[in-house]
Amino acid sequence: MPSPKNDTFLRALLRQPTPYTPVWIMRQAGRYLPEYNQTRKDAGRFLDLCRNPHLATEVTLQPLARYPLDAAILFSDILTIPDAMGLGLYFSDGEGPRFRRPLREEWEIRNLDVVDPYAHLRYVMDAVSQIRKALANEVPLIGFAGSPYTLACYMIEGRGGTEFHEIKRMLYARPDLLHKILEVNAQSVIAYLNAQIEAGAQTVMIFDTWGGNLSDAAFREFSLAYVERVCDGLKRSNDGQTVPRIVFTKGGGQWLEALAESGADALGIDWSTNLGRARERVGESVALQGNLDPAVLLTTPEIVQSEVKKVLASFGPGDGHVFNLGHGISRNTPPENVAALVDAVHAESPHYH
Amino acid sequence: MPSPKNDTFLRALLRQPTPYTPVWIMRQAGRYLPEYNQTRKDAGRFLDLCRNPHLATEVTLQPLARYPLDAAILFSDILTIPDAMGLGLYFSDGEGPRFRRPLREEWEIRNLDVVDPYAHLRYVMDAVSQIRKALANEVPLIGFAGSPYTLACYMIEGRGGTEFHEIKRMLYARPDLLHKILEVNAQSVIAYLNAQIEAGAQTVMIFDTWGGNLSDAAFREFSLAYVERVCDGLKRSNDGQTVPRIVFTKGGGQWLEALAESGADALGIDWSTNLGRARERVGESVALQGNLDPAVLLTTPEIVQSEVKKVLASFGPGDGHVFNLGHGISRNTPPENVAALVDAVHAESPHYH
Repeated sequence: MPSPKNDTFLRALLRQPTPYTPVWIMRQAGRYLPEYNQTRKDAGRFLDLCRNPHLATEVTLQPLARYPLDAAILFSDILTIPDAMGLGLYFSDGEGPRFRRPLREEWEIRNLDVVDPYAHLRYVMDAVSQIRKALANEVPLIGFAGSPYTLACYMIEGRGGTEFHEIKRMLYARPDLLHKILEVNAQSVIAYLNAQIEAGAQTVMIFDTWGGNLSDAAFREFSLAYVERVCDGLKRSNDGQTVPRIVFTKGGGQWLEALAESGADALGIDWSTNLGRARERVGESVALQGNLDPAVLLTTPEIVQSEVKKVLASFGPGDGHVFNLGHGISRNTPPENVAALVDAVHAESPHYH
Repeated sequence: MPSPKNDTFLRALLRQPTPYTPVWIMRQAGRYLPEYNQTRKDAGRFLDLCRNPHLATEVTLQPLARYPLDAAILFSDILTIPDAMGLGLYFSDGEGPRFRRPLREEWEIRNLDVVDPYAHLRYVMDAVSQIRKALANEVPLIGFAGSPYTLACYMIEGRGGTEFHEIKRMLYARPDLLHKILEVNAQSVIAYLNAQIEAGAQTVMIFDTWGGNLSDAAFREFSLAYVERVCDGLKRSNDGQTVPRIVFTKGGGQWLEALAESGADALGIDWSTNLGRARERVGESVALQGNLDPAVLLTTPEIVQSEVKKVLASFGPGDGHVFNLGHGISRNTPPENVAALVDAVHAESPHYH
């Protein structure tokens, strides 16, 4: 299997020279796109989209048809693993993901099993294979999973965006139980991402969406340690090509030095961190991905262009930068502003290479 | 007016020697206390509590009656200023504060006036005077206000905890309008905090609750610059006593060096920041206040004691530490755990002084 025709993204993740800064957008296949909303409406529920490889392929490719993005990302959800564990994932309109049976009892935790992706998540690997075929090797495909800690947040709280009282109570009062969950999650994430790699994912990203809610000591023990465990267990290459790993801890700007030692090739950076200073801090160890404030995309093409220039200037000259937002794109984004973003990155970044 | 009998808190804020580490708790007069809930029930609405100096005094003193805390904090709300501007503050049960008339139109912003605390917020100064009398100079009283940026978040969004799309859109597309609001807010906060100082507040705290939602560049321009403006405008002393300033940017761990130059005597530190490393970073310039994860208080007295010891050890030997949580106390906290916290700080901290 040869490199994709456009391999700037994979090269940038490995800090190899590229003629310009590659760009993709977190949640690029999403609700800001009218064609996505139409497909979703036809499919019924969000989970029906994820579970149908044909539809997952269709929506994965939608943003690529509109914009000259340098990567595609598998259309799926970070909660496929706890769903496969039987916790009863559902989405209630406007309220984000929920679990019908969050983990609370010690016996439930003791009985928790590692997910076999080939037994329970074959629909994801089918989607990966099908998307790879549809991409025809034009740009690389990103696979992904939630971090063990972030999955645990949803599994214990039953939902996201809470004050995290349930998981924190367990963390402080019964760390043994939380470690048990995290160990099962780490093994599940390893098996799942390796299966995505075998099915054709050319790089994988670990989303540590909630690691930033932890104290410094707890972050290292309960989030970072398991991200390291995952990186240790991942296949380093497939079909003769290195498979880079991207690690993104939202709100993790204080831990970049530690994250750079996690086994990641690249770190996602949210918009609260100064990208130039982040680069100084991690030195030559990892590439950086980010970090435009997604709210910039709510303005005008001219302002988007001007703010894109600032992000490029903040990273400065040299390789090892993947342009992205500092968090997922908002559903309120006008699609023409995404065009302005991608065009500005491609037009302005060659000066820095 | 002499120093309070227990002046450890004021001394620690100024990095002067103290025999132990003083402690108070953000939102210490709050819903975890049965007596608070009773007073609030009798009063009717939350705003009726704030606006009645007798009731505000009663609830301010409630936690002091239970625990040997080293400071009292005025019972009030950070939104008294935008309320006095006529934006129509109200509280809907379980949903936090809202404004009936959020700022959206340019003409409304151009017409925004600085609040005269003596004309519109006299009830606050009456509460400060009355609390000072009731405290009988046992411990010092903290006055407070929201930061200009945090107030602007509520004024523009109409509520807290949003994705901040409205204020961000203004920030990127019409920075002139946001600067106008921030300038009015800064002048209002200065007048308001100086009035609190004149009424008897012995230290003041600026709560920058939402500064952490900004990019690095935007934080410096739209939040930090106005915190500096406020600090510049504050009375440095009253009745011959220095009035220390505490600045707390939640999620501001990446900006401690800059915050230490803001004119603050002490910085509030949330639990995501390592306190020992924060101390290395700010050196001798400011005292630090924090930073136990409030979720620790949801466990047991034994675990609280053990985690208190870790925070004290993280700061290490020497003066200039005020013990606190990294954020407001949760309403689900068992009151006996607060007793364990205060006792542990007082019992364990003398070793470090």
